[in-house]
Amino acid sequence: MLYLIGMGLHDERDLSLKAVEALRGCERVYLESYTSCFNGDINRLQEMLGKEVVLLDRKDLEENPEENVLAGGEVGLIVMGDPMVATTHSDLVLRAREKGAEVKVIHSSSVYSAIAETGLQIYKFGRTTTIAYPEGDYFPKSPYEALKENHMRGLHTLLLLDVKADEGRYMTVNEGIKYLLMMEESCLQNQFKKDSKCVGVARLGGDTAIRYGTAEEVIKEEFGGPPHILIVPGKMHYMEEEMLKAYEV
Amino acid sequence: MLYLIGMGLHDERDLSLKAVEALRGCERVYLESYTSCFNGDINRLQEMLGKEVVLLDRKDLEENPEENVLAGGEVGLIVMGDPMVATTHSDLVLRAREKGAEVKVIHSSSVYSAIAETGLQIYKFGRTTTIAYPEGDYFPKSPYEALKENHMRGLHTLLLLDVKADEGRYMTVNEGIKYLLMMEESCLQNQFKKDSKCVGVARLGGDTAIRYGTAEEVIKEEFGGPPHILIVPGKMHYMEEEMLKAYEV
Repeated sequence: MLYLIGMGLHDERDLSLKAVEALRGCERVYLESYTSCFNGDINRLQEMLGKEVVLLDRKDLEENPEENVLAGGEVGLIVMGDPMVATTHSDLVLRAREKGAEVKVIHSSSVYSAIAETGLQIYKFGRTTTIAYPEGDYFPKSPYEALKENHMRGLHTLLLLDVKADEGRYMTVNEGIKYLLMMEESCLQNQFKKDSKCVGVARLGGDTAIRYGTAEEVIKEEFGGPPHILIVPGKMHYMEEEMLKAYEV
Repeated sequence: MLYLIGMGLHDERDLSLKAVEALRGCERVYLESYTSCFNGDINRLQEMLGKEVVLLDRKDLEENPEENVLAGGEVGLIVMGDPMVATTHSDLVLRAREKGAEVKVIHSSSVYSAIAETGLQIYKFGRTTTIAYPEGDYFPKSPYEALKENHMRGLHTLLLLDVKADEGRYMTVNEGIKYLLMMEESCLQNQFKKDSKCVGVARLGGDTAIRYGTAEEVIKEEFGGPPHILIVPGKMHYMEEEMLKAYEV
């Protein structure tokens, strides 16, 4: 049996009782932390579970899963947030099924629902997108397209920010705003300008920081450590505006 | 302090360690179960927390929160899924702030990310919508509109199904499909027909049942107890199709 277990948003105390129970029964436990950012303490996690927790990087999991999580037996793979959200883990499920192994998912908290803490209503979010770090000539404008499509329908946009955990790089709200403004300069379709409203969010589910204002205002704020996300609201209900007032810069 | 605490998807074992810790420190604990469906056991929950858990219905919480959750002190309100997803709870936060009370949200698993267990990729979902029970002349076609908008962009649609917990009514996948087919008959825009593919899901995070097929096929399936949800996929990646094969009827 392969258990895919959500760690939740922030640290080891975001594990559910169900997750802890399953992990205690596992022969081997792994932690995948390259698709997001673990703000907990691996020693505390090991003590809590009473067993070793082996850290896996992208290569271990994508190229050699047969040597670790797919090597058989009762295995637990802990993943930040809710486990099936990263496409990497779909691939793992398919590989496990091919080998005839059973897979069980134990869910946990995720940014996809936790963004409702800002007061923005979740059924008014359109498609989610990710801002990637530009590399050389590579600077995908797809987030700008998603923003435009969502705006046309009055919907909010959740913009996830690039994580390169192996290089210790986690995109900040400030960088995210900078890249969106650069996309505006290149696409010129009035989707995100200095006076556009946005919500910067850091460490949801931990020592959460939420700041609401214009791009020009929010880009000057200090958000502290990762993970960060950025939201560009669409048309707002008065109750959403009321909720956001508490976070105005 | 008012703690808004996510119960998670299924039962009391979906509470996080952080949630249990906070609840044990509360003077009074309430459980709101009218916006979703609690599949756990309230006695086991009370034993686990070592205190009484008072059930609240819609009226208690929307009309008289000053008599319970807003009456002051260290209070925990447990909510199914992730707590801020229901708009009711935004209202509660605003009322608490008006009274000068601090509010802390403790997140948990939610259908908004857990749908990734089907293999459908979460960043390809458009706006979520809810199918409401028709009542007399009231039969809102907004889910059909959302479906159409999402289809035009190739996106998947999550359709939440009406919950009337006070009447013990929880819309089933089968009813959801029936209502969508009725909307098609009335709107005639080729968005959902008998041969349209859909994914029926019951009790995500519990004894999950997932069935994939045409509307005509899935409507004949027996899904068991609530909660149910329905997904209408948009354009699929081959890996999404591969994942869904395991659930074909």
